[in-house]
Amino acid sequence: MKLVRHGQPGQERPGIIDAQGQIRDLGDHCKDFDPGFFAGDGLRQLKTIDLQSLPVVAADTRLGSCVARPGTFLAIGLNYVQHAIETNAPIPTDPIIFSKAPSCVSGPNDPVLLPKGSTKTDWEVELAFVVGKRAHYVEQSEALDYIAGYFICNDVSEREFQLERSGQWQKGKMFPTFGPIGPWLVTSDEIADVQNLGLWLELNGKRIQNSSTSDMIFSIAKILSDTSQYVALEPGDIITTGTPPGVGLGMKPEAYLKPGDVMRLGVDGLGVQEQRVLRWGEQ
Amino acid sequence: MKLVRHGQPGQERPGIIDAQGQIRDLGDHCKDFDPGFFAGDGLRQLKTIDLQSLPVVAADTRLGSCVARPGTFLAIGLNYVQHAIETNAPIPTDPIIFSKAPSCVSGPNDPVLLPKGSTKTDWEVELAFVVGKRAHYVEQSEALDYIAGYFICNDVSEREFQLERSGQWQKGKMFPTFGPIGPWLVTSDEIADVQNLGLWLELNGKRIQNSSTSDMIFSIAKILSDTSQYVALEPGDIITTGTPPGVGLGMKPEAYLKPGDVMRLGVDGLGVQEQRVLRWGEQ
Repeated sequence: MKLVRHGQPGQERPGIIDAQGQIRDLGDHCKDFDPGFFAGDGLRQLKTIDLQSLPVVAADTRLGSCVARPGTFLAIGLNYVQHAIETNAPIPTDPIIFSKAPSCVSGPNDPVLLPKGSTKTDWEVELAFVVGKRAHYVEQSEALDYIAGYFICNDVSEREFQLERSGQWQKGKMFPTFGPIGPWLVTSDEIADVQNLGLWLELNGKRIQNSSTSDMIFSIAKILSDTSQYVALEPGDIITTGTPPGVGLGMKPEAYLKPGDVMRLGVDGLGVQEQRVLRWGEQ
Repeated sequence: MKLVRHGQPGQERPGIIDAQGQIRDLGDHCKDFDPGFFAGDGLRQLKTIDLQSLPVVAADTRLGSCVARPGTFLAIGLNYVQHAIETNAPIPTDPIIFSKAPSCVSGPNDPVLLPKGSTKTDWEVELAFVVGKRAHYVEQSEALDYIAGYFICNDVSEREFQLERSGQWQKGKMFPTFGPIGPWLVTSDEIADVQNLGLWLELNGKRIQNSSTSDMIFSIAKILSDTSQYVALEPGDIITTGTPPGVGLGMKPEAYLKPGDVMRLGVDGLGVQEQRVLRWGEQ
């Protein structure tokens, strides 16, 4: 299933993409794709619905984040060798876990806002997933069973805030609109091999990230298993799993987002996002 | 008001401490002290209730975390000069923000669990607060208005996970039971001067942390204001604000928690916590 949330910000309703690619409204069948949905029997119940019986939603309807409001929003750093090299960072020997913020989540095509005073806001196309059941001390061999579905995340990052302002990375990772997710939450059963998905990002029409999840240092299963040694992951938590090379921080000279820029990004089978860059306060 | 959550894990009900120090049940007046409670009119409504009309709860009832499940659980690192010095860290010039996890929250007197293989689990008495309204780009002069109340937090930390396993601190900060909060959520109107509260921790009866919030490098108002530049804080989010000197990492030689150890900790006006240490799986 390909699940979406459609409607204006704060008023999104759940929906599903039918075989013809149309959005069908699910609002009469479930409340939202929130932690309670994933903790309960929500996904299984949706499989029993005849999609043709559902109202069609206009194709130009805004899409919200494909997960309503994650419980926790974690991220993995430096998970592609060439990205570690381009940022002059050592290649990690364990997954690096850091945090984004639930409140930074936005729709896949919503504007991305530059914080006040920002000069180093950067893009990062990533594969992300949502946790389907509580995961604590999960073995790698069973880890994929704990994932309800996958989607694209643009792990937008302010590099000065991240790297030059005392300490931990997350200072540059949590700003509102720094977590576009979607357009679709694609359920795990539709992904044949999560370690063989192309992913790419275009800035103003020029492809500058172009890689495959086969290039990850730590697989999705390893990431979930490892993370579950440190934290009890809960239904509705999301993890974005690192970006391949081609970010602004890695360019020579470094190059960052400006108002009016357009990012377009995709992961095989998970759709495409497109975001225009605005200054904060100008949205 | 001093608010509590009483009952068995997962079944806590809201309560309030009356003038005689008894717990009174609030379950007929509000659902829980969760993000929805803080986002709505919950606190103001409680003020209109005659406490003597509420059922008394047995004094030996277990207390849960004083906030149900925070939206986001942030923490400030190295916020006391002598703690930075004892851990051989530079004194920060900006608040260092890192994350704990909503799922690490536990009751003030629940056991603290040592993760599998842990040899460096450490204690940290801290003053924490819960956000009462959305805070984004908040001026320092108005920052305290955004805080609904204060409570004790033991920012339990596994130092090997935090410092020796690739990257970011939060790997040692998120384990279940690493966030005892409470016993009471004390509303802001009851705290005359949040920058003049003694705080202390005893390990097996010996006082090893003993300081005051007057020793903070960055005040509570500065922390909220600064953090709100990087993230939109939401009602029900909590922030714990750093520990004074006296942690195990700072001892010579370093000394960490063992099964059977008992931590007792307090902050002036906010009550006392007491936790016994157990190995994970032995709770």
